[in-house]
Amino acid sequence: MLNKNKIKWIRSLEYKKFRKETGCFLAEGNKLVSDMLPYFECEFLLSESSWLATQGDIHVKEHVMAEEGDISRASLLRTPQNVLAVFKQPVYELDSADLKTKLTLVLDGIQDPGNFGTIIRMADWFGIENVVCSPDTVDVYNPKTMQATMGALARVRTHYANLTDFFNQFKNPDDLPFPIYGTFLEGENLYNKKLSSTGFIVMGNEGNGIGSETESFISQKIHIPNFPRDRETSESLNVAVATAIVCAEFRRQQACLGM
Amino acid sequence: MLNKNKIKWIRSLEYKKFRKETGCFLAEGNKLVSDMLPYFECEFLLSESSWLATQGDIHVKEHVMAEEGDISRASLLRTPQNVLAVFKQPVYELDSADLKTKLTLVLDGIQDPGNFGTIIRMADWFGIENVVCSPDTVDVYNPKTMQATMGALARVRTHYANLTDFFNQFKNPDDLPFPIYGTFLEGENLYNKKLSSTGFIVMGNEGNGIGSETESFISQKIHIPNFPRDRETSESLNVAVATAIVCAEFRRQQACLGM
Repeated sequence: MLNKNKIKWIRSLEYKKFRKETGCFLAEGNKLVSDMLPYFECEFLLSESSWLATQGDIHVKEHVMAEEGDISRASLLRTPQNVLAVFKQPVYELDSADLKTKLTLVLDGIQDPGNFGTIIRMADWFGIENVVCSPDTVDVYNPKTMQATMGALARVRTHYANLTDFFNQFKNPDDLPFPIYGTFLEGENLYNKKLSSTGFIVMGNEGNGIGSETESFISQKIHIPNFPRDRETSESLNVAVATAIVCAEFRRQQACLGM
Repeated sequence: MLNKNKIKWIRSLEYKKFRKETGCFLAEGNKLVSDMLPYFECEFLLSESSWLATQGDIHVKEHVMAEEGDISRASLLRTPQNVLAVFKQPVYELDSADLKTKLTLVLDGIQDPGNFGTIIRMADWFGIENVVCSPDTVDVYNPKTMQATMGALARVRTHYANLTDFFNQFKNPDDLPFPIYGTFLEGENLYNKKLSSTGFIVMGNEGNGIGSETESFISQKIHIPNFPRDRETSESLNVAVATAIVCAEFRRQQACLGM
């Protein structure tokens, strides 16, 4: 049975403070919950019986069958779905040796939860397994981020780290050449460069781009060319769109060259 | 002076019904308003005096200097800015002869205002001048769409049309070959195709993709390959992200081949 305290606990997960205190996060809707269940420890599941009937074996600490209006009372969505679940936040180790063999995304201060979730979904599509975020990047367990990931967090690990400390790990000469790409208006045309299959792609804040401290680590400044070059246009692209175009080009080159 | 009726009128523009009745739309914030002012007829402008001081000549039908709290009362934003403006919706003719010489985006039932605005901003970046939308696509003058365009509507025209009637115009044999591209899971790898510099790129609804009636017009089914091909991944990409990756590849090929 769904009591008031439980509803209060679920709804409190809208706020980072309570997510941090409880180490939990909320996911809502059939697609998201079904995708996450096999990968994350489920503390609590609230579902309609019709939803449960569509599932195989599920492992949850506590399950409540929703009665009329229960999900609406607990949900943070405008249009509540037939299931919601509270999961434990996983703890990942960041293995810097492993990162040297992969392409990794680094986010410097992304603020919009929807942009961030869209980036994680896209990272999954392009097989980017790790996303390293500056401490001022929006919380990945923000419910709006979570909804935008569409379940991709099952395959993409996010890590929060001071980017200066993080990049300093790779400054050893043995690590070179280890490209750190970043997008800048004055960067080189993305399509004129031979892109690496390992290294970092840094993307910056929606309004201010990459911060100056992070910029000092960038070894390759790149730019998405507008078209045609001489036409007046917007100043920039949405950050999720820009990240996607850049990652797509890395993977296109990699697939074409059979790396 | 900003009276109650004016506030009511401005705030009513959140709703499509009132936007349709009045033929107006709302834009908020310095960047958006400044970008739109030279291109759209401004019915009403509410600004702080500090904002006005940063502008050159501006042409508006009515201007009110905001007093303390005025903008907050009229604004639809969570964080009101120092200026907002009501513009007349422009009326565009759709010139099908002109479309034959260009690359045009067609949206079949995009629902999310943020996605739609992001797509318009991206279309501007890639010099796509026209976006044709099915009648069930979200209204371009929705304030959330407007904010996400970041002013790109000054250079991108949107048209609402029944897509069946629209595509039937181009079925004359004289129009062939006139490629109509659409993204499908079973489509051909985007990167293995020589893409045209004219024609249509059709993108579908967030959940359901391209409708079956529209699908019957698609001559080229394409697909954005995930990477690596054999890795389990998300079912799809966000529609604004997918549209951007597709448009970027069209323009990359066009720029590389100097078409």
